[in-house]
Amino acid sequence: MDIQAYMHSVGRAARAASGVIATAPSEVKNHALKSIAEHLDGARRAVLAANQSDLNRARRQDLDSALIDRLELNDQRIDAMLEGLSQVIELDDPIGVMTNIGKQPSGIQLSKMRVPIGVVGIIYESRPNVTIDAASLCLKAGNACILRGGSESIQSNQAIAAGIELGLEAAGLPRATIQVVNTPDRAAVSELITLTEFVDVIIPRGGKGLIERINAEARVPVIKHLDGNCHIYIDDEADMDMAIALAINAKTHRYGVCNAMESLLVGAKIAPQLLPQLGDAMLSHEVQLRGCDKTCNLIEGAQAATESDWSTEYLGPILSIKVVDDLSAAIAHINQYGSRHTDAIVTDNPRRAQWFVNEVDSSSVMVNASTRFADGFEYGLGAEIGISTDKIHARGPVGLEGLTCQKWVVYGDGQVRK
Amino acid sequence: MDIQAYMHSVGRAARAASGVIATAPSEVKNHALKSIAEHLDGARRAVLAANQSDLNRARRQDLDSALIDRLELNDQRIDAMLEGLSQVIELDDPIGVMTNIGKQPSGIQLSKMRVPIGVVGIIYESRPNVTIDAASLCLKAGNACILRGGSESIQSNQAIAAGIELGLEAAGLPRATIQVVNTPDRAAVSELITLTEFVDVIIPRGGKGLIERINAEARVPVIKHLDGNCHIYIDDEADMDMAIALAINAKTHRYGVCNAMESLLVGAKIAPQLLPQLGDAMLSHEVQLRGCDKTCNLIEGAQAATESDWSTEYLGPILSIKVVDDLSAAIAHINQYGSRHTDAIVTDNPRRAQWFVNEVDSSSVMVNASTRFADGFEYGLGAEIGISTDKIHARGPVGLEGLTCQKWVVYGDGQVRK
Repeated sequence: MDIQAYMHSVGRAARAASGVIATAPSEVKNHALKSIAEHLDGARRAVLAANQSDLNRARRQDLDSALIDRLELNDQRIDAMLEGLSQVIELDDPIGVMTNIGKQPSGIQLSKMRVPIGVVGIIYESRPNVTIDAASLCLKAGNACILRGGSESIQSNQAIAAGIELGLEAAGLPRATIQVVNTPDRAAVSELITLTEFVDVIIPRGGKGLIERINAEARVPVIKHLDGNCHIYIDDEADMDMAIALAINAKTHRYGVCNAMESLLVGAKIAPQLLPQLGDAMLSHEVQLRGCDKTCNLIEGAQAATESDWSTEYLGPILSIKVVDDLSAAIAHINQYGSRHTDAIVTDNPRRAQWFVNEVDSSSVMVNASTRFADGFEYGLGAEIGISTDKIHARGPVGLEGLTCQKWVVYGDGQVRK
Repeated sequence: MDIQAYMHSVGRAARAASGVIATAPSEVKNHALKSIAEHLDGARRAVLAANQSDLNRARRQDLDSALIDRLELNDQRIDAMLEGLSQVIELDDPIGVMTNIGKQPSGIQLSKMRVPIGVVGIIYESRPNVTIDAASLCLKAGNACILRGGSESIQSNQAIAAGIELGLEAAGLPRATIQVVNTPDRAAVSELITLTEFVDVIIPRGGKGLIERINAEARVPVIKHLDGNCHIYIDDEADMDMAIALAINAKTHRYGVCNAMESLLVGAKIAPQLLPQLGDAMLSHEVQLRGCDKTCNLIEGAQAATESDWSTEYLGPILSIKVVDDLSAAIAHINQYGSRHTDAIVTDNPRRAQWFVNEVDSSSVMVNASTRFADGFEYGLGAEIGISTDKIHARGPVGLEGLTCQKWVVYGDGQVRK
């Protein structure tokens, strides 16, 4: 079968399965999640063996070590996948929840019902644990899903898919409720993102280049995350110790994550006192500093930033620093150079905090907290399928509710439109 | 200036204006709406003269009469535009509304704030009244907008745009808050839908062909309405009089609208009694009937339907009718042939009603009410920018709230991620 025919058959099967899973009771969905966990646990050896051959191939091809680290499975990581499944079982089922809007002048009774989106396509890197995370959230939200992991993880994903199928069958759900694309051919992605008849939304995860390419080619709506050029602005009225602690946490807690701070703005009045201390603290963490002229005068060891630094997501131990005249200048800088992901202010002045919250156009806006909190678990969503930097449908961390929509429900007793 | 440069300058100006309008107080936005109404009222003669030259050109080009009807303005239609502005002034401002989510285990205080989307691009037919409707809703929701009406209405729209500009200036808002594209060149549309840097969402209104083309070419996310193949299913346990009254209203109240019934399904047990009466009623309204075999046996004057009838949106005095075995068959038919717009059941059996509501995957699902109620005004939204048949962001009638999104707001007192 050629790729196009294969992806059409996958899409058609997903659409059919979505009609079943959409109205499956919570107990059935939870039973399926539990069965998937049991079958995955039982298939550990097969999964690890498949992963070993993915790893061997990746090493032979000299792929970079970060990719190989994300690709690798071990007993601990499989335990974490099982733990993730248990957590999704514990989450409240969002489906079927009614919001009463009330009787309208015509006499009709209006409400909204939360329902699944339908068929979700997820395209992600060679991280086999995402297969289980994404599958479990889609299932719990009543969606059928089509999962397409990176080509380097093909054998690991097929082994995981076998466990998923057995789990679905044990719960009496169609196998096509969760499908893992079985070919590493990239043409499968091109097909998936144009299957408007069968797929309702695409969620790509991965590098910015990949996501931009998918967005450019997709005909199916896309919920996407581009970059995370997150800022902290230290206001002139900030508590200095708190400001330094937050900046260190936001920059150094983890470097490769989208909610790490990449750029620090400092009020002109507090800068002379703050920056030398903050500079020492950053340099002791071996963070390379790239600053404006004023910053370079205040921090020995900072090098001059170029214009492109202000819009760069380093994803590493590098930080750009700029001294700004005031709060307005900070807000203007963030709205110009930021990526609308997560930005924070450190201040003891509540009016300034509120101004910042109102004016900064980002999916998460924070006061006196580390940008690292922009995360589905930290926000109590239980898990996240991704973080959206788009403005429609879902913004910021996307959990179960982001995988649903609402339909209007009207009850009448014979009303006609006049 | 070429089209590309022109549209870039429009986009850049809209993005800049969106930063101002996003945080403008309700009073300022309402003042602007009031000023726009005053300036539009004062410019009646100019608007009607411009419209006259659009109409003359359209008649010279022998454009079809429905298009000319939609294009035509008169004092009544301008009054309706002014009335629409007053209604939008009365609507509650959705922006800034906070939803408290509560303290998380880390100690951060989490909430969501309703905020504008940013810049909205609206592409519509040659209906100059839409210019005011769309502009007023976008403004009230805190968005900048770029409006591109059909090329036949170019002069009418430019005259209306002049009134809008004066109104915005009187309220101290940037003129670029509402921009009306000043060229009939279709290349402007191609530019607008790919301006990802400056435009956050595109809402196309018009025929299915146009919307499909826009969706295929767009790089900016699209909220769209394809077709309205709406069904009524008359259950075996329906009240016959109510069923006939609802079917007549849904089919004949207005023919050219997306929430008109296009296809009628009838339970096999009630059909022999119901269909002859219903057929008479429809034929007395000069509705052409296209039925399945059973229908044709029961209604004299019905002609045989072909497979394509089941998925056709007639937008005229034609109705397809099919006798179905039971409720499950009705649901399966609707989910297969329908367009996920609006579908209704007529039944006295609450369990069957609930089953239908749960299983039918449409933006509006109704019990014992006419499909014609699927409408922003009837749903209490005050006005609608359109009806979405998409599943993400907004589904069904899209009002002010559909032109907004929510951002996460975090208040801490120095929390760092552990």
